[in-house]
Amino acid sequence: MKPQSRVFIFGLIVVGAAMLAIGILIGQFGIPDGSCSASSSPSTNTPSENETISVLMIEECQAENIEEHVRQLSSRPHLAGTPAEKENAEMLVSLWTEYGLDSVRLLPYDVLLAYPDPDNPNKVMITDNGVAVFTSALTEAVLRPEDNNTDVVPPFNAYSAQGEPEGPLVYVNYGTADDFDWLAKNRPDININGSIVIVKYGNNFRGQKVLHAQLAGAIGVIMYSDPNDYARDGSEAVYQNDWWLPDTGVQRGTVKVGSPGDPITPGYPAKPYMYRLNASDPSLPTIPVHPISYGDAQQLLSELGGDEVQNAWKGGLNITYRYGPGFTDPNRKVKMSIQTSREIRTIYNVIGVINGAVEPDRYVLLGNHRDAWVYGAVDPSSGTGILMETTRVYSQMLKIGWRPRRSVMFCSWGAEEYGLVGSTEFVEEYQKILGERAVAYINIDSAVVGNFTFGARATPLLQQAVWDAAKKVPDGETQERSAYDVWLERVPDPRTGTPFTAGIGSGSDYAPFMHRIGVPSTDLLYVYDFIRLGLSSYPVYHSVYETFYYVKNFLDRNFWRHLTVARVYLELSRDLADSVILPFGCADYAAKLQQAAQGLERNFGVKLTQNGVVLDDMKSALDNFTESAQNFEMEVSDIDLNDAYAVRRVNDQMMQLERAFIDPAGLPDRQWLRHVIFAPSSVDTYSGAEFPAVVDALYLIDDDPDQETRWNNVRKQLAILTFTIQSAASTLNDVTQL
Amino acid sequence: MKPQSRVFIFGLIVVGAAMLAIGILIGQFGIPDGSCSASSSPSTNTPSENETISVLMIEECQAENIEEHVRQLSSRPHLAGTPAEKENAEMLVSLWTEYGLDSVRLLPYDVLLAYPDPDNPNKVMITDNGVAVFTSALTEAVLRPEDNNTDVVPPFNAYSAQGEPEGPLVYVNYGTADDFDWLAKNRPDININGSIVIVKYGNNFRGQKVLHAQLAGAIGVIMYSDPNDYARDGSEAVYQNDWWLPDTGVQRGTVKVGSPGDPITPGYPAKPYMYRLNASDPSLPTIPVHPISYGDAQQLLSELGGDEVQNAWKGGLNITYRYGPGFTDPNRKVKMSIQTSREIRTIYNVIGVINGAVEPDRYVLLGNHRDAWVYGAVDPSSGTGILMETTRVYSQMLKIGWRPRRSVMFCSWGAEEYGLVGSTEFVEEYQKILGERAVAYINIDSAVVGNFTFGARATPLLQQAVWDAAKKVPDGETQERSAYDVWLERVPDPRTGTPFTAGIGSGSDYAPFMHRIGVPSTDLLYVYDFIRLGLSSYPVYHSVYETFYYVKNFLDRNFWRHLTVARVYLELSRDLADSVILPFGCADYAAKLQQAAQGLERNFGVKLTQNGVVLDDMKSALDNFTESAQNFEMEVSDIDLNDAYAVRRVNDQMMQLERAFIDPAGLPDRQWLRHVIFAPSSVDTYSGAEFPAVVDALYLIDDDPDQETRWNNVRKQLAILTFTIQSAASTLNDVTQL
Repeated sequence: MKPQSRVFIFGLIVVGAAMLAIGILIGQFGIPDGSCSASSSPSTNTPSENETISVLMIEECQAENIEEHVRQLSSRPHLAGTPAEKENAEMLVSLWTEYGLDSVRLLPYDVLLAYPDPDNPNKVMITDNGVAVFTSALTEAVLRPEDNNTDVVPPFNAYSAQGEPEGPLVYVNYGTADDFDWLAKNRPDININGSIVIVKYGNNFRGQKVLHAQLAGAIGVIMYSDPNDYARDGSEAVYQNDWWLPDTGVQRGTVKVGSPGDPITPGYPAKPYMYRLNASDPSLPTIPVHPISYGDAQQLLSELGGDEVQNAWKGGLNITYRYGPGFTDPNRKVKMSIQTSREIRTIYNVIGVINGAVEPDRYVLLGNHRDAWVYGAVDPSSGTGILMETTRVYSQMLKIGWRPRRSVMFCSWGAEEYGLVGSTEFVEEYQKILGERAVAYINIDSAVVGNFTFGARATPLLQQAVWDAAKKVPDGETQERSAYDVWLERVPDPRTGTPFTAGIGSGSDYAPFMHRIGVPSTDLLYVYDFIRLGLSSYPVYHSVYETFYYVKNFLDRNFWRHLTVARVYLELSRDLADSVILPFGCADYAAKLQQAAQGLERNFGVKLTQNGVVLDDMKSALDNFTESAQNFEMEVSDIDLNDAYAVRRVNDQMMQLERAFIDPAGLPDRQWLRHVIFAPSSVDTYSGAEFPAVVDALYLIDDDPDQETRWNNVRKQLAILTFTIQSAASTLNDVTQL
Repeated sequence: MKPQSRVFIFGLIVVGAAMLAIGILIGQFGIPDGSCSASSSPSTNTPSENETISVLMIEECQAENIEEHVRQLSSRPHLAGTPAEKENAEMLVSLWTEYGLDSVRLLPYDVLLAYPDPDNPNKVMITDNGVAVFTSALTEAVLRPEDNNTDVVPPFNAYSAQGEPEGPLVYVNYGTADDFDWLAKNRPDININGSIVIVKYGNNFRGQKVLHAQLAGAIGVIMYSDPNDYARDGSEAVYQNDWWLPDTGVQRGTVKVGSPGDPITPGYPAKPYMYRLNASDPSLPTIPVHPISYGDAQQLLSELGGDEVQNAWKGGLNITYRYGPGFTDPNRKVKMSIQTSREIRTIYNVIGVINGAVEPDRYVLLGNHRDAWVYGAVDPSSGTGILMETTRVYSQMLKIGWRPRRSVMFCSWGAEEYGLVGSTEFVEEYQKILGERAVAYINIDSAVVGNFTFGARATPLLQQAVWDAAKKVPDGETQERSAYDVWLERVPDPRTGTPFTAGIGSGSDYAPFMHRIGVPSTDLLYVYDFIRLGLSSYPVYHSVYETFYYVKNFLDRNFWRHLTVARVYLELSRDLADSVILPFGCADYAAKLQQAAQGLERNFGVKLTQNGVVLDDMKSALDNFTESAQNFEMEVSDIDLNDAYAVRRVNDQMMQLERAFIDPAGLPDRQWLRHVIFAPSSVDTYSGAEFPAVVDALYLIDDDPDQETRWNNVRKQLAILTFTIQSAASTLNDVTQL
């Protein structure tokens, strides 16, 4: 069924406007001239013309095209560094060239990846006096014959160390910093040192689980997906009957922490001439790590000895959860055999460009990764399908003679799954150009992970633009209301009366743009009811069961949700690329900062006061920033749109705002993160933190015997934050007033 | 005598054109409108109008005004952090306000400075069985009654540690890295560890002498100005008879190395809210350091024991130079008593702004420091007088209705002498704005240090603009030829057929602009014949004898040399502020890089080849850069000057070029220096080095037993250099092509 046939109120308006607009446009832009040189009458894109193109683009975008792309892309495994993945990159080059983009380039990088040894499979065993009595499954069971493919990579954790550790097993819940800390404080008798730990997936980034285990002295880490988090409705309500994970499913994933990108060329692009560290040099895990199914985990956990765990640590398996250490049978131990090797392979980014008509040196980037752990029908092919359809729609607009004011860059990244590798190498290679010229980066990774509502992560600067785009686009369920209305109804932010819009963490390719070079970023997707469900991901994430069948049956039967995301992608990018004045919310940033300051005071105010630390300077800087932002927005509203230098000036000021929050010195102990206001949480890379250096300085501060050093660090980080906010305010002030 | 009365051929043209121009201008700009909003016809500053203003500005500039300023400024000591210095800052605020600049601001910073204790003077003694038998002079002799003033600070080295070390004396020539290295290798019997070293001023920055001495284990450092370097023509040909240093003169100066600016707020502005390190925390000297006259040095050196020094180490005193250690009389030792204290005081920058008419968000900065060790008639008041007259000339142009296209900022810095403190704090506070908006920084410090020729240090990007300005300005000797012609004749660069133009070191306030944030910088001055004389500075540098009398009698009787420098300052700044297309030499940068690469190959090619290191990748990047620069300059020559977006685009690209050489990670072990192409030499802050990280990696490489680590570092630094050049090339490429 075509979505248009069910377009009612919202749809009628869209169609009517579109028909009218096509006529106008054919008249106006009828003869494409192919020119992209700056126009001598630069402000031709008036609001009314923008509106026409906006309607046309939304209308042109088709659900069945996306569906067909997702079907094709997920028809075989396409892991980073494999021939299938390269073929997909080349397919995009052909397609975008055929679409008539102004340029299309394939950008290779030689980077350190990791693969299991096909001749020596990874496994976890229970040994009895040294003899294996149980071995974890080497592959996930094939539950639908169509899912069978010899190119499926067995479950593994990328960048695990090699080795065959054997020892007592200890259960540490989710393996968070707090979990390890709780155990150390409350059960000092349970020795992690020299043990293998088993932890549940979820609640934080898996790399951090490994880091904390390593710091505690563990000799190996086993991860599994507990039914409480991944199979809540019983053993039957799982793939292929339902969206939950079956007991044979395993989540793959990287366990690299630290600087994203190629581990052996940190900070610089992995070009042939670049100097490379040894594969064992960088800060990759030093102990073996392996993921298993909850079916296999049950074997291990049911034999664990020691006391029963506290209630908060219990999972959903039908066993008694115990801490260990070790099994009830003292002859039994757990043993891991991990032979995953680190190899340099070539990965590919594909960059397609539409040259801007007026300001070709201003870039709006639309990005999505292409590599998948297995079939990746959700992650990332749902997004790749949308990127492909988005590109087609843009090319259609070019054909009727329209051209955006600014350049639009379509970016298909390689090797995101290993740690944002393709996008990071790109940002490293072009950091100077992008730092000066990139207007915004719009990411789509797993575009549809649920059927509840459209949603977004965004810098405060782009929130309003995302909301405005969502207001123009029909929602993915009935197409009767706007995506914005459904979002607002289902996930309201009670503090602001707007749809809840999360901050920018580090879970996908927006991270190098936002956290390294301060390019305003956002990430679009259709989500499940994450507030009610509280899941860390959709259940089959990174397993072999993430198939087209799964998407079609459990997430988006008619692909309308994909369509909604695609249309917001189109409209948001058009707005950013074509509006004379950039649609940035500077006062929104001020409001967000005030909110963050209130949060800091609420969480730490008493403790700060007790230690003689006052927030007055920071609040004063914040008030300056708020005033600067409000004055600036008034100035912008009065600007003469025909005065090119004035237009460029205020747009440059807005672009400089996000950059002003970048400290070249980086965050303490995390120099690759340079955004002083937002950063991935230091204890969970996936989630975002506000004022990260200050919050990190306060983390577990009471436990530290060296109170003076710790509190001096709090003062220092607060002073840097104060300076940074003041510095950001100055970017918005009258440009002749320092 | 007024200079105009001797203006011949060159002057006649200037005057004639000026008279004509005044008429045109009064007609055209007659009614000042006070407006600085962007014009709707932005390209009003046509070449012919530029030419008229250019002639007018040069003509308006008056030698006697500069002379009067220098006389006033040098009439009393004006050391950083003293009331006299603050009064000078306030005088500038009044003057510039009176001149009608659009805004004038006094910017205070609270920074760590250092002062001798008036009640406990610093001294160097010879002790005999613990009893002082000789004590160095506590002050410099007053040789002219006019030079007497109770505010003269006694000779000292700022940031010396306090203490009273006593021990054997060792003579280490100039105290360079090579000198200490030579002694360690050739005279291992002479133990620096536990000794006090005496070194000559000159050949490198005094802070490096202290650093090397400290690393060698010395417990104190004494510095003096040897007659070979500071009094070559005998004991009579000295102040007040000649320009050489008398035997009572002492060079003051800072011995801080490392990051410039306030030592206890590195990287951030010294605002009241900023977090401060302890005064003993930062990397300031840990041993006492003190400067003495060559009169006093003779007392110490004549009693030294040990072998006679090698010929290259001999100085100009009428004694036998010996290494030591210790005196010939074994009962005698050298003892220092240093009570200099580190104190936080307030310093002031004064910033005056003329708002740009078309691009107010582009800044041309003219800077000069204001603080002096004593009277500072040369350093910096010669420059301050010029800055003041420059400001007056600009204000006259405003009065006849002219206004530059871009904003012009006049910057008077505080506390340069302590380590570029005022300028560094300013750059740290406004790094985001300046990083994006500063077109160029033009420095004048000691504006007239000799009477030989006008000269300049400059980034390659600004060389041509400096030369072009010097072509329009009469020289300072006869006013019959251009400053350029005299410069070319007297200091030709045989490699290029142009006037020799040095690179940008770290000796003055251009350093934070150039090396921290990549603002194209230049430094203007009138010099002595440095090639023939080979001096490290003019002889009375930083002594009490640096007086107006000295300037008037030995450097520039009619102040025409000051006038020449002022006129180049005016013309160069006008060109940068008013030309539609920035007068930057991108291909000149390429040529300079090619030259630097040839130098690297000449100096290290054989050694590199022997160790399997090839320069092919770097050369290939260089060729790309050269091609990009040439293509870019062709593109620029074709540009439509009425197309504002195109004009801004190419200007932005040129501004981005110098920034592209900035690596946010900084140079190895010198993170505050971030320019990958040029840096102060790591063994001498005053002089510049090309490809500094590579050259440093190769320094004394043969002596290191760990050859593998050292050569890997060479490979790494070469790869970073290659990447940086490639990245710079990309800023000049077609903006739609990555």
